[in-house]
Amino acid sequence: MLNEYNCWLQERAIQEAPALRLNSVCVRGEGAVTEQAAEEFRLGVKRLMGFSPAICYCGECTSEYSGVFLGTIDKLSGEYKLSSEKLKDGGFLIKSWENYLVIAGQDEAGIMYGVFRFLSLLAQGKADSAMEIKDEPASPIRMINHWDNINGTIERGYAGPSIFFNNDKIEYSKERVEDYARLLASVGINLISINNVNVRFNARYLITEEMLPDAAGIAAIFRPYGIKMMLCVNFNSPMIIGKLPTADPLDASVIDWWKKQTDLVYKYIPDLAGFLIKADSEGQPGPFQYGRNHADGANTFARALKPHGGLIIWRCFVYNATQDWRDWSQDRPKAAYDNFVPLDGTFDENVILQPKWGPLDFQIGEPVAPIFGALKKTRHIMELQITQEYTGQQVDLCYLPWMWQYIMEFDTGHGSDSCIKDLVNSYKEGNSFIEGFAAVGNVGLDNNWTGNTLAQANLYGYGRMIWDPSLSAKEIAEEWSILSFGHGAAAEKVVQLLMGSYQTFEKYNAPFGVGFMVNPGMHYGPNIEGYEFSRWGTYHRADYKAVGIDRTSSGTAYTDQYSPGIAAMLANPETCPERNILFIHRLPYDFKMKNGETLLQNIYNSHFEGHDEVEAMIEEWKSLENLLEKDVYNSVLARFQRQLMNAREWRDQINTYFFRKTGIADKKGRKIYE
Amino acid sequence: MLNEYNCWLQERAIQEAPALRLNSVCVRGEGAVTEQAAEEFRLGVKRLMGFSPAICYCGECTSEYSGVFLGTIDKLSGEYKLSSEKLKDGGFLIKSWENYLVIAGQDEAGIMYGVFRFLSLLAQGKADSAMEIKDEPASPIRMINHWDNINGTIERGYAGPSIFFNNDKIEYSKERVEDYARLLASVGINLISINNVNVRFNARYLITEEMLPDAAGIAAIFRPYGIKMMLCVNFNSPMIIGKLPTADPLDASVIDWWKKQTDLVYKYIPDLAGFLIKADSEGQPGPFQYGRNHADGANTFARALKPHGGLIIWRCFVYNATQDWRDWSQDRPKAAYDNFVPLDGTFDENVILQPKWGPLDFQIGEPVAPIFGALKKTRHIMELQITQEYTGQQVDLCYLPWMWQYIMEFDTGHGSDSCIKDLVNSYKEGNSFIEGFAAVGNVGLDNNWTGNTLAQANLYGYGRMIWDPSLSAKEIAEEWSILSFGHGAAAEKVVQLLMGSYQTFEKYNAPFGVGFMVNPGMHYGPNIEGYEFSRWGTYHRADYKAVGIDRTSSGTAYTDQYSPGIAAMLANPETCPERNILFIHRLPYDFKMKNGETLLQNIYNSHFEGHDEVEAMIEEWKSLENLLEKDVYNSVLARFQRQLMNAREWRDQINTYFFRKTGIADKKGRKIYE
Repeated sequence: MLNEYNCWLQERAIQEAPALRLNSVCVRGEGAVTEQAAEEFRLGVKRLMGFSPAICYCGECTSEYSGVFLGTIDKLSGEYKLSSEKLKDGGFLIKSWENYLVIAGQDEAGIMYGVFRFLSLLAQGKADSAMEIKDEPASPIRMINHWDNINGTIERGYAGPSIFFNNDKIEYSKERVEDYARLLASVGINLISINNVNVRFNARYLITEEMLPDAAGIAAIFRPYGIKMMLCVNFNSPMIIGKLPTADPLDASVIDWWKKQTDLVYKYIPDLAGFLIKADSEGQPGPFQYGRNHADGANTFARALKPHGGLIIWRCFVYNATQDWRDWSQDRPKAAYDNFVPLDGTFDENVILQPKWGPLDFQIGEPVAPIFGALKKTRHIMELQITQEYTGQQVDLCYLPWMWQYIMEFDTGHGSDSCIKDLVNSYKEGNSFIEGFAAVGNVGLDNNWTGNTLAQANLYGYGRMIWDPSLSAKEIAEEWSILSFGHGAAAEKVVQLLMGSYQTFEKYNAPFGVGFMVNPGMHYGPNIEGYEFSRWGTYHRADYKAVGIDRTSSGTAYTDQYSPGIAAMLANPETCPERNILFIHRLPYDFKMKNGETLLQNIYNSHFEGHDEVEAMIEEWKSLENLLEKDVYNSVLARFQRQLMNAREWRDQINTYFFRKTGIADKKGRKIYE
Repeated sequence: MLNEYNCWLQERAIQEAPALRLNSVCVRGEGAVTEQAAEEFRLGVKRLMGFSPAICYCGECTSEYSGVFLGTIDKLSGEYKLSSEKLKDGGFLIKSWENYLVIAGQDEAGIMYGVFRFLSLLAQGKADSAMEIKDEPASPIRMINHWDNINGTIERGYAGPSIFFNNDKIEYSKERVEDYARLLASVGINLISINNVNVRFNARYLITEEMLPDAAGIAAIFRPYGIKMMLCVNFNSPMIIGKLPTADPLDASVIDWWKKQTDLVYKYIPDLAGFLIKADSEGQPGPFQYGRNHADGANTFARALKPHGGLIIWRCFVYNATQDWRDWSQDRPKAAYDNFVPLDGTFDENVILQPKWGPLDFQIGEPVAPIFGALKKTRHIMELQITQEYTGQQVDLCYLPWMWQYIMEFDTGHGSDSCIKDLVNSYKEGNSFIEGFAAVGNVGLDNNWTGNTLAQANLYGYGRMIWDPSLSAKEIAEEWSILSFGHGAAAEKVVQLLMGSYQTFEKYNAPFGVGFMVNPGMHYGPNIEGYEFSRWGTYHRADYKAVGIDRTSSGTAYTDQYSPGIAAMLANPETCPERNILFIHRLPYDFKMKNGETLLQNIYNSHFEGHDEVEAMIEEWKSLENLLEKDVYNSVLARFQRQLMNAREWRDQINTYFFRKTGIADKKGRKIYE
């Protein structure tokens, strides 16, 4: 039966063991990650086959003694006739023949990933004696951002308190954090930031001698799993910690302060990956207050970090929140491009920009942001969000890889082979490539880590999809479901539920990409005009005859930020994807959509359908009652029932809102409240 | 110049001293309140005339030695030929002739009130040698409710932290609390509850031995000012403190627990006025959870308090927040009447009900609640709100006595002479009278007590108006302005600003009584649909053709709760006051209002006017720059400027909202944003 805590690393006897001699392992190599990989092999085999293989480090075992050989490719390739082609960092080979198994990594981390891949195949019943697998991650940066606060709460966290912090200090269970490191490593994550990008209160002192020993303790847990740590820092640290009169990044005393403080940090954590920073955004300080630009800011950090091989990751979610709803020419979605593309090429080589995938804020129905493909000379990664801030907050089922696949397949139109997945770590003429991904995590101290057990699929799916952006959401759902529920009807049904969930959520949410019809602050549940007059630039401007924002060149000219072909496609309501159409266009309610119905009728239809689909999902889930662990069945069912209440509110409030505006009834005569 | 801290008790030499011998005072009587009254006389004369009168308690001074005689009427009437007519408690006589002055109270408190009245007249230049004044308070209960939390915050407080609490305990400056007691006594307040009616966290233990000594310390400060204290208690105390398994008010162990706990409380504070409770409302526990009604609940407290002469004040702001916006038949404004009128006559004699003045929640443009005049056999008081929760939060100038005058003059239609002010402590055939008032206070630790210095007028005005409900808002404004600013142009201008302020605020607020277009939670600034789909029963249901709630018998039948004549008047849109019209009626936008314009055009007009009136107020204020203390001038100006921004948001958001709904432009062509 399912043990929620173990996620996709269940203890469950496999149905048919492969004819491999797994009881004795020879490790050809050394190092903490290698040893941890061997230990994970032992634990994994024990979980799935019930016995604990012997691990030998003699380095000389022959096939007489051992059936399994773990090590780096350079150590193993000659002996076992492996390809010696150089793989990307973290790449691995798995080869089996007769009853032998070799798992060889390009580096130590590669051994770890190879072991976890083998264990996954074993659990899926796909390990056999004729494997010849070569795999490598698409990109080098595969990161999780924690928005964990020093008091133990988590910004946008829906799964209990922080696993790292409590009571204004670092406080954690070593076992829990190590189990988390194992889960992350098993899907290829290699970088983690542990504290919220809004660096407040005592978190500002994480980079001081008082707190660094504890921070180093967390880094030490992640280290053998091949996961490096980053710390989020406050731009004003020179004033807050250093008591300087300024934090101006071009001030000599500030530059010196950052250099010395960074040196101190690296004394405690010599392999720290660097700093992550949110500047000049939503109240956080930044270079603007000194008349400096983002490059000025980022480069000062970069130079302090460079001697230590550290990176500065600089978020591009930047704006000063001065938008006025009266002014139809202002447009926040333009901010990332407007702020950073003009600075392209002015950042130091160890600066990595981190724009959000969408131009506004992780909303349903946003197009992919135009900054991707437009940065030509600046290193950057893409920020996703695993925690379901706008996508149901781990109450509503919403399988995010469905959307991530859409993102990966989005064509930026910059050059040829210009889909996002083509740009991932793959140089194209005239473009800088995307060096990886960061995503806001979704775990907390809940026993099942993610609040909704089915939301574990989003964490798993994030790791898998950024490792290999050509994977489909469906393939990932199948992997995860079998690993979690075992083979059988439950896993099959769960795949079906996951695969339909995003579109269902989208149907009862804000219609057709119009965005921000959520309750302010909490971002949960409908509030159709909740942000309509706010300073955050989040408007739909529905009136009695039309809804949506004209972001074409006749409006805010947001679409002009895209490459010409994409801009033209988006700017034409006939070719603009209907998922995004109200994000790009202001349309009259009688606009005819592709199905021949009006926009208004489509709004009604989608909200009735979305609600009814949740009802159907609940029936599907109920059919699994006898196949599932009672606790899991009930806790997921309870969330589905809350989701149905949500869907009903969305349906009724949205439909009523537009009915009140237009007086036009539903063609099918369904109940719309006055 | 004005010292904000001293409010209406300024230290300022009067222009022309009356020909009275104020330098020597003989006190004919004894007791703490009498002595404090004499001390207040001394302090007041010192403040206004610069010398400190001698106070003599020999009881035998002749007019040779003393010019001033203070005491109770029974002690002084014979000697000084005063009327010996019995006045209400707290009543007083002031008599002057030649250079003598007598201030005689019906009781000790009456001496205090007489002294403060004399000092007020002295400061206003109205004291002379031919005074013959008789005055008495309209009603016996003149209360301030503090919504102060035990952690030092104040629910709906806009003037700094609590003057009573900090850090989960009672913590205060004795001097500050005594100065507060003086201010309250000077306008006739005689009862105060110090803790929030939402009794949470450590405040639940105020009635235990751990905290009672500190609570008794506060009672001791108020005592010599003739002000008694109440404590707010949590209905679940028998479970929380007593560890009983139930708080069922009819359970013998609960009845016994309350008796014993009340006995304990009175050991520490023998003259405690009693308990105040909010039950079964907004999450607070109450009798409903045990299937009991409010009388069952209140009477259990009443019986525990009775041996000590204590009262239980039971708030009528009761509801369980289960309203569904889809259901047009539910109507929260009916709750107080529905809950309490059927129980009329079933409450013990020391139970006092406390309904809010309006049926919904202290909103601009509500009519007076129908429960007043309908309660025939139950003691009750009316709850007002001095703190400006919905009326500008002490940023916007909003002189509340203007509205209280409207309330006092509201005719309930129950019998003859049935205006609220007629019902105050004055028995009418078939009605129970209103025994007084409670109001949520507006002070905090800000140096000027009330955030906005001009908001001191609301605290002053509350005391004055409930002492004498026949006073006009204008008379009170004149008194307060002269007392605060001295005679002259500043005081005259301030009267003018105060008197226009309420109507100005009303003009740019939610239109014509429709209510609840504020930001949820904070209740500040416009959010037109912020509560439109909430569970709190706060809807305006604007659509493309109409706005407002039909609360007549064709709708929710709320108006049927009024006496027949008033019900008929309200139910007819031709006779319903336009201030309340959208509270009672659902009207099409082209409804013709009394000025011949449509409803929609009136909405536009009032919002443009309200905004422009704030601009004019600022110009008026600026004309006082050279007449005012710089700090006061600037701090009030800064608030006016924030008010203007608020008024602009209200104007533009409201106008845009209705323009978007209707597409009908302003007749006068003023700018309405799309």
